[in-house]
Amino acid sequence: MTNRRFHSAKQIRADVRSSIITGPTTGMAEGYTQANVVILKKEFAFDFLLFCQRNPKACPILEVTNPGEFLIKRTAENADIRTDVPAYRIYEDGVYSKEVDNIVNYWEDDMVAFLLGCSFTFETALMENNIPIRHIEENANVPMYQTNISCDRTEAFSGPLVVSMRPMTAQNAIRATQITSRFPDVHGSPVHIGTPEEIGISDIYSPDFGDPPIIKDGELPVFWACGVTPQAVAMNSKPPLMITHAPGCMFVSDIKDQTLSVL
Amino acid sequence: MTNRRFHSAKQIRADVRSSIITGPTTGMAEGYTQANVVILKKEFAFDFLLFCQRNPKACPILEVTNPGEFLIKRTAENADIRTDVPAYRIYEDGVYSKEVDNIVNYWEDDMVAFLLGCSFTFETALMENNIPIRHIEENANVPMYQTNISCDRTEAFSGPLVVSMRPMTAQNAIRATQITSRFPDVHGSPVHIGTPEEIGISDIYSPDFGDPPIIKDGELPVFWACGVTPQAVAMNSKPPLMITHAPGCMFVSDIKDQTLSVL
Repeated sequence: MTNRRFHSAKQIRADVRSSIITGPTTGMAEGYTQANVVILKKEFAFDFLLFCQRNPKACPILEVTNPGEFLIKRTAENADIRTDVPAYRIYEDGVYSKEVDNIVNYWEDDMVAFLLGCSFTFETALMENNIPIRHIEENANVPMYQTNISCDRTEAFSGPLVVSMRPMTAQNAIRATQITSRFPDVHGSPVHIGTPEEIGISDIYSPDFGDPPIIKDGELPVFWACGVTPQAVAMNSKPPLMITHAPGCMFVSDIKDQTLSVL
Repeated sequence: MTNRRFHSAKQIRADVRSSIITGPTTGMAEGYTQANVVILKKEFAFDFLLFCQRNPKACPILEVTNPGEFLIKRTAENADIRTDVPAYRIYEDGVYSKEVDNIVNYWEDDMVAFLLGCSFTFETALMENNIPIRHIEENANVPMYQTNISCDRTEAFSGPLVVSMRPMTAQNAIRATQITSRFPDVHGSPVHIGTPEEIGISDIYSPDFGDPPIIKDGELPVFWACGVTPQAVAMNSKPPLMITHAPGCMFVSDIKDQTLSVL
């Protein structure tokens, strides 16, 4: 299997477009920001953009296209949102109907694409600061939990905040808070540290999504707002048509992770 | 004249609502964030929200209401955007038609109010760091300039970036960059330092808005994105109806300036 860690984002997108890459993009094009994708018809676009604005930790916006424009202009060059994601999921009236490798035949003239920041970027920054990321060490999926924290709702969109969890020492939790605070466009600082029950998580070893965690003695669970939130919320509101990336199959942008640092 | 520097934001809004205050809010309710106001019909709301998202330095969003909702919920308690601004300006087809002290009779069921961050907040932070602000010392208006920098446009909204300028020593310019970087919701870091001609300003002593500056030997002009930009841009696009605050007559929110600091 080709190691694509040192490929450019552009090369990755070309291989996605020609269906050489059809699965998860984890670990590809190191240093380039990957994005969650949500596509909705214009009718829902104001409400969803407002939802993102009100819930910036869960839904940090990297780019929003003009209605009907399928070319990505701000975060990548020569990118087409209809073909440059390895796998898409189609939701009709909030129900997952199928997975496809491009959406050329689904694209409509009034569709708006939202590219949202993803935790891959801050995990890279944490690892570069010698903070080990357990699920990456274990080659597992990050554990994710539905919380008792309600997102700030809009007319059409509402739902609970979904968080991801990374166990670490107290010292690393402090350093990780500093580091991720510098990256508001990829979820930013943690939303909670320790005491899972306070945010409605009754069993930390039974995540709602992803794999059960391994938590070592002396480690605290540290929780970040998760990019699954906007998809879950959008699904909740049952728009007639919504298209997202398939889990782990992200849009690889030309943005270098480090340029997202605010300080 | 009553000195309202130490009044609470709530008290200021009550006095505005009962028309005791009908002019500029500069210097009132120290430590509370004041906001620029733009009100548009829903038809233009997605496009304007997208414009703000694409131009966050000029248009930092503090709150956006749901269509038709005139009560402010996130940044203030018991606030009504139809009555709690000292003076409003009505623009019809992009043309200023009149100034009114409330908009109860102009409010429509599909209107959306945008509250945008204002430079008062970062000026307070600069002064608390012993950085003198010339136009405040001189009791003048900040000088503002139209630049040759185009905002990132949307379908309906486009136009040049308007900047405000504060002259200061190089040491203060460095410190001011650090401080304002921590306040992205009130214009954030400078957009330019020195060399006015590079951003299309041919005569620094002839601002497009506000008063001509006094620049002392050894001082650099430091430029920040200005809240006049969104109003100018919205006016440009000639929406049938737009309502804004009158210059200097801001909405005084319950947000404490310091809580807007990201680090």
